[in-house]
Amino acid sequence: MDQIMEKIREIEKRLFAYNYALALIGIDDATAAPTESAEGRSEAVGLLSMEQYRLLVGPELGALLDQAAGLNLDRQAAAEVRELRRMREQYTKIPPEEFAADSRVFTLSQNAWQKAKAASDFSLFAPWLEKVIEIRRRWAGYFAPEKDVYDVWLNYYQAGLSMAQADPFFASLRQQIVPLLAEIQEKGRPIRTDFLTQDWPLDAQAQLSHFVMEVMGLTREHCVLAESEHPFTSSLYDGDVRITTHYLLDNMVSNLYSVVHEGGHALYERNIRPALRYTVLGEGSCPGVHESQSRLFENYIGRSREFLSYLWPELNRLFPAQLAGVSCEEFYRAVNLVTPSLIRTDADELTYPLHIMIRYELEKQLLHGELAVQDLPAAWNRMYKEYLGIDVPDDARGVLQDIHWSGGDLGYFPSYALGTAYAAQMVEAMKKELDFEGCCASGNLEPIQEYLARQVWQYGKELQPDELIRSGCGGEFDPSCFARYLETKYRALYAL
Amino acid sequence: MDQIMEKIREIEKRLFAYNYALALIGIDDATAAPTESAEGRSEAVGLLSMEQYRLLVGPELGALLDQAAGLNLDRQAAAEVRELRRMREQYTKIPPEEFAADSRVFTLSQNAWQKAKAASDFSLFAPWLEKVIEIRRRWAGYFAPEKDVYDVWLNYYQAGLSMAQADPFFASLRQQIVPLLAEIQEKGRPIRTDFLTQDWPLDAQAQLSHFVMEVMGLTREHCVLAESEHPFTSSLYDGDVRITTHYLLDNMVSNLYSVVHEGGHALYERNIRPALRYTVLGEGSCPGVHESQSRLFENYIGRSREFLSYLWPELNRLFPAQLAGVSCEEFYRAVNLVTPSLIRTDADELTYPLHIMIRYELEKQLLHGELAVQDLPAAWNRMYKEYLGIDVPDDARGVLQDIHWSGGDLGYFPSYALGTAYAAQMVEAMKKELDFEGCCASGNLEPIQEYLARQVWQYGKELQPDELIRSGCGGEFDPSCFARYLETKYRALYAL
Repeated sequence: MDQIMEKIREIEKRLFAYNYALALIGIDDATAAPTESAEGRSEAVGLLSMEQYRLLVGPELGALLDQAAGLNLDRQAAAEVRELRRMREQYTKIPPEEFAADSRVFTLSQNAWQKAKAASDFSLFAPWLEKVIEIRRRWAGYFAPEKDVYDVWLNYYQAGLSMAQADPFFASLRQQIVPLLAEIQEKGRPIRTDFLTQDWPLDAQAQLSHFVMEVMGLTREHCVLAESEHPFTSSLYDGDVRITTHYLLDNMVSNLYSVVHEGGHALYERNIRPALRYTVLGEGSCPGVHESQSRLFENYIGRSREFLSYLWPELNRLFPAQLAGVSCEEFYRAVNLVTPSLIRTDADELTYPLHIMIRYELEKQLLHGELAVQDLPAAWNRMYKEYLGIDVPDDARGVLQDIHWSGGDLGYFPSYALGTAYAAQMVEAMKKELDFEGCCASGNLEPIQEYLARQVWQYGKELQPDELIRSGCGGEFDPSCFARYLETKYRALYAL
Repeated sequence: MDQIMEKIREIEKRLFAYNYALALIGIDDATAAPTESAEGRSEAVGLLSMEQYRLLVGPELGALLDQAAGLNLDRQAAAEVRELRRMREQYTKIPPEEFAADSRVFTLSQNAWQKAKAASDFSLFAPWLEKVIEIRRRWAGYFAPEKDVYDVWLNYYQAGLSMAQADPFFASLRQQIVPLLAEIQEKGRPIRTDFLTQDWPLDAQAQLSHFVMEVMGLTREHCVLAESEHPFTSSLYDGDVRITTHYLLDNMVSNLYSVVHEGGHALYERNIRPALRYTVLGEGSCPGVHESQSRLFENYIGRSREFLSYLWPELNRLFPAQLAGVSCEEFYRAVNLVTPSLIRTDADELTYPLHIMIRYELEKQLLHGELAVQDLPAAWNRMYKEYLGIDVPDDARGVLQDIHWSGGDLGYFPSYALGTAYAAQMVEAMKKELDFEGCCASGNLEPIQEYLARQVWQYGKELQPDELIRSGCGGEFDPSCFARYLETKYRALYAL
């Protein structure tokens, strides 16, 4: 065993080096690169990806994985072999010439989507979306011809996930959120938000970022903050994690919650156990679990009354003029305002799952052939009216707002809502062990991090997503935690 | 021919991708990376370098280069084959196990040098320097056993360079500079420098950087400025060049000339002709020629009375308090002050070549076995006393100040002085075609850049260094231009 795993790990290290380079190129692109330098960058990315592909699908790794199949491996080694097999299959099951041709379609489709969004004209994107859906149906047939096409793609982004789990989750959410939203709109006590739209000095906002990072234990030794148009987290390895934020003069809250959200992702990546370093397990699990960690910090901690009470003196020190005459309670309410809106990424905690649910329903129908691409905008607009009660004025602010489908990511969206629900259950679980509110109120987040490191973070990709969720949630996934959380928080907030 | 060159260029593209990744990792390391993230970075660098090495020494490229030998190639293709052969030989002539072991020595030696410099204790570094010299002698035997060991290394950094050219160059410089320096110290009119050591607001310094970059035609579309401890230039390809500077509150001049110097390097890389993109020719030539371009902008343009007169209104706008009561002529003199000093990188234009000459003499003796490592500090201190007239107080400010030798770079230093001399001759040559002083005085550097692009920049590594120097200088290298330049400038400056 030892010799075969040693050789496998040598290849994993080489894969790591390509991942490192590709991730750094991505970070640089979004934070520092000259504006018109894309040509050389995309050439380098294409070539490095191809080198990595050669290594991954090459006969050397294939032979080693075959040899490893007969061995009695420990948990980590078995997981490494499992992940490598999965990665290889994703490439080798698709005929190489189709893979190359389809990759070009995704690139062109994303380009078409950009133009369509800029022009707010769905017809420019429609023919490409048709091609993308055709590819995703064809590939699903290669991956698992016996399975439902949408289940194949749910499973692609989160091993173990299927409509059998997601359907009732979204159904119950809808049944709960739609009437609660209506009640809030009808009878909820008004929330004061006037003070949010002032000028918030940028250097004070930057100081706030650093304060928040310090509270979260994200030290400059291993995590740096940069600026980019869209905030993101990228990990080069567990000892080097990058987060970004954006500073808007008229919106301090956006930066604050960007840092807390990305900081949650970063803590996860920082705390993968060192034994997984340079292996294919040395990164956070599926998007759903990753999102659970960022949402846990952003919403369950960051938007809690307790944590805001801890932040309040610092907020007042940094923004004395802006917060004059505002109480901490008013601030708490303002950052938790519920308001149906057009754009998913701006949505509040309560209406956010409805945005996801709409995409979930639509992509399911598209892949099942129950909805034609040409009918997609009308279906989109109808659902926004039905669930969020709002009229979509144009496709740019409607069906064209997200990049995902243009690049082939159908089946990815559910992660966002599921992650938030996993987080609710994790918070319930850890409350049995520790004083969650007390941690938030004192700014001492260590016990929370210790729990998450032990139950989730340390494992990287070693455990399968469903095992990780069980470990973090202290049992099977139970969407009722999230339902309870929303119900309790928003009834209180709106005095219903 | 076409098919073989096509395949060779495919491999060149793959080599480009590794270079791109490695260069970006270097840039990130110096500008943005978290402070304690070196472990994963060095792992990635080691692995990517090894992948690149595999490709370069692999049988595929070997066979293609053999086939290309019989072909009638155009100038560019012939140069690509020549460079690839040279790169391959550098690796394949050294037995692989020695190459690996020796690379480790260089790493450990650099580490020992850092500690020795910090402790100002040469004895910590001496045993490593002995090993380094042994390796460089051994490798020279592999590369060209028939040649003098020091000539092998001069030629390694600059094809065509040998002691036959460098010896008389340094001898004549010494004969000229040492007495001129003595005369300046004895009889030169005093230069006012009091105003240089004030506080220079950092944001005004940053604005100055941007102004200078604009004058030089370095637009943000293809060139960005970052901060790092030691300023440097790194090119990812001709469409993406990065320069850095450092801002010191009490020293505005340091930033100004860092930007101009690195800007010169950047203009060179930016103007390599697009046909060389993604080939091994798509970067600036040897260190000597590269330095000639940065020094040309830094010294011959940047420190000229004419260019400073053009900058003067902007300098006064940015630093009204600091420059109150200072004349442009006083500023010109201050930034051209001659003063013998301990540290090479801080040296003025006149004494700088003496710093290089000392290293040139010493490394020659070390490689020839005429000087024992243990006697190096004493020899160093003696030469600083003899040529610069100063006492070296400790090894940190003496023999340990530069990193080069610790990593095996013996034979590199002469580039710095030669480059400055090439630049002098290039300026003389272009003055026959254009109004150099007029360009500097008006801030319209385009005619100068047009000359350099035509005669030097466009060629990348296509021409050999001696061909490039001939092209840029309008004839054979003639060190008397540099001698004349120094003589004229400094006699006038000091009213001798």
